[in-house]
Amino acid sequence: MSVIDIPDGSAFGPDNLPYGVFSVAGGAPRAGVRVGDTVVDLAVLLGDPVFAAPTLNPFLAQGPRRWAEVRERIRVMVGRHVPHQALHEARKVRLHLPVDIPDYVDFYASEHHAANLGRLFRPDAEPLLPNWKHLPVGYHGRAGTVVVSGTEIIRPCGQRRDAGASAPAFGPSRRLDIEAELGFVVGAGSVRGRPVTVDEFGEHVFGAVLVNDWSARDIQAWEYVPLGPHLGKSFATSVSPWVVPMAALREARIALPVQDPQPLPYLRGDLWGLDVDLTVEWNGEPVARPPYRDMYWSPAQMLAHLTVNGASVRTGDLFASGTISGAQKHQRGAFIELTWGGREPVTVKGEERTFLEDGDEVSISASAPGPDGTRIGFGRVTGRITPAASTGATAAAPDRNP
Amino acid sequence: MSVIDIPDGSAFGPDNLPYGVFSVAGGAPRAGVRVGDTVVDLAVLLGDPVFAAPTLNPFLAQGPRRWAEVRERIRVMVGRHVPHQALHEARKVRLHLPVDIPDYVDFYASEHHAANLGRLFRPDAEPLLPNWKHLPVGYHGRAGTVVVSGTEIIRPCGQRRDAGASAPAFGPSRRLDIEAELGFVVGAGSVRGRPVTVDEFGEHVFGAVLVNDWSARDIQAWEYVPLGPHLGKSFATSVSPWVVPMAALREARIALPVQDPQPLPYLRGDLWGLDVDLTVEWNGEPVARPPYRDMYWSPAQMLAHLTVNGASVRTGDLFASGTISGAQKHQRGAFIELTWGGREPVTVKGEERTFLEDGDEVSISASAPGPDGTRIGFGRVTGRITPAASTGATAAAPDRNP
Repeated sequence: MSVIDIPDGSAFGPDNLPYGVFSVAGGAPRAGVRVGDTVVDLAVLLGDPVFAAPTLNPFLAQGPRRWAEVRERIRVMVGRHVPHQALHEARKVRLHLPVDIPDYVDFYASEHHAANLGRLFRPDAEPLLPNWKHLPVGYHGRAGTVVVSGTEIIRPCGQRRDAGASAPAFGPSRRLDIEAELGFVVGAGSVRGRPVTVDEFGEHVFGAVLVNDWSARDIQAWEYVPLGPHLGKSFATSVSPWVVPMAALREARIALPVQDPQPLPYLRGDLWGLDVDLTVEWNGEPVARPPYRDMYWSPAQMLAHLTVNGASVRTGDLFASGTISGAQKHQRGAFIELTWGGREPVTVKGEERTFLEDGDEVSISASAPGPDGTRIGFGRVTGRITPAASTGATAAAPDRNP
Repeated sequence: MSVIDIPDGSAFGPDNLPYGVFSVAGGAPRAGVRVGDTVVDLAVLLGDPVFAAPTLNPFLAQGPRRWAEVRERIRVMVGRHVPHQALHEARKVRLHLPVDIPDYVDFYASEHHAANLGRLFRPDAEPLLPNWKHLPVGYHGRAGTVVVSGTEIIRPCGQRRDAGASAPAFGPSRRLDIEAELGFVVGAGSVRGRPVTVDEFGEHVFGAVLVNDWSARDIQAWEYVPLGPHLGKSFATSVSPWVVPMAALREARIALPVQDPQPLPYLRGDLWGLDVDLTVEWNGEPVARPPYRDMYWSPAQMLAHLTVNGASVRTGDLFASGTISGAQKHQRGAFIELTWGGREPVTVKGEERTFLEDGDEVSISASAPGPDGTRIGFGRVTGRITPAASTGATAAAPDRNP
């Protein structure tokens, strides 16, 4: 038996307790909680086989009262002596996609991002389309290509239409980009035909992860009318391995920006934003610090909108915020904005850079205020770009969402 | 033991043999094959527990050689005496969603449909957007609200902007519509990073179903820029219960319409369309006969495009054709086209009708040519509209995709 050592100032202190799925050499994936630099095996700690599953879904499906009870039990036990065999050094375990994701929706909830992309994609029109301030615009993404942090990102091939060309060309994307986002994981599902109200958010949403919604801007620009992004996004979306419980983000709740015009009644209620600070590192150099606190639409509004037509949500569903961008240039969470369509390069390790090159690595980290001046860490979502696969070539798919 | 009686002219003869999932009173859902007016319990007939599963996914995952072998075994056994306990009257069983669908993509492969919707949604512009003849335009739909034929369709609520209004209103959709489509079910998955070529279609795609992609046109028209349809579609998509194997559609293969301009090389290869005739019945009255043979993009091109960026497909993935519309007015597979945006009502049971009213039932059926003058039937996909649920009301969700 031993007590877990938590380094001073750790963003994985006893008020965070994020859940993930890990394995050690030769072992099957199972649920764990991160405490300091330690991963605690929950099936061993709590003696509950629900945590021996290869995803968090069975636990998430148990609902909010159970989540609260387990969180309280872990919090109590973490301060005491726990069995050695429950403890693993975080740097020695392999982390897996924590959740089996049935449906993935990506929103577009940052006013700065939507306005910037409007200016870039539709330079002759109003930056925000007429619907933008009335509803959280969103679309379905590909759940099957959501991968865990660390999975290599193969540069996608596709159609693009170069400036001045009448017909499209085919080849590896030349404008490969990131989108730094926060994603929300549904724990308890809902029933078809019964919308989840703003005030019921906590009954359904378990926690949050970091999301990098990799985007091929040249593919996207050519394909996206009139049915939205498809191949420009569907090749890969990376998520961080630790799901931070919404219960750990209580202190991070802040007022939303003023919503004018006032949204329709189904989008009103117990509304809050989150004071989460993100950092985007490009090959280890911080290039942007997107502030989640500036997001226009709240997570509860996203879920209420997503279900207001009677659509149900299921355990493991992921809905993400869309790119997080602030008002300042260094707060933009996508390189197309940061470099203004590639026309204003940024300096990375002494080189002028616009979009991603093969071998580049992007790592997004984040933290939020916790109780008593502590920080609640999200960890990181990291991905490295590998060269485009030629058609017919084989590529490995570690930790693909099964 | 008995020999299955197949009525003369049955569209479920020995060259069809579609797979579904059924249950009888008190029993668990399991796989069956439809022969004439009989459902044959495959776990009993073949003694293979893979067919005792509540979805076809475990069988589909076994791949094309196994599909061919099982089809041949069933074909041989169906002509002989089979155990009584394997046989159920089709009208007495309950049919379930046959496949657990991880990802659902909807294409837009009918030129007539895309041009008609272009004229209706963007009257001042070219009907087809510049990308349409270069790639099969598509988008991700909500997999979690794909339901089996017979499931009631609750009228969705949502935002619409009425003509002349500056702000949106909220309420039940007033322009609830159908989309008559064919859907293709992936059997064997692919690997991320390795596109499925046009010629590899048969290695991955198991069969086809009828799809009704219910659409709330007022919600869709307001929300769809710039990220595509979302709430206007995500409340429900109905599929027929019988998955017709691609092997049963060999005789139905026909040449595609001429593709001009010639598509990029990754969209070339062994291309064929399908000679499937659909009938749309509105409250029992046939109102449209959409011809699948006129579709511009082939199913193999849809799959090749879907994966060309490295996106993987998984067992059970569904990709649908988009609305099937022919050149003639009576061949249009959506009511928005058939009634030209509601301005040219059709007569249904003596009444002038435009969009769907509560209590309306839509049933789409289809068949294709089989060997020796026989027909290969798809059965039907049927749904009835029930009144909008008020927020907070509870609604049952029979056969929701689990």
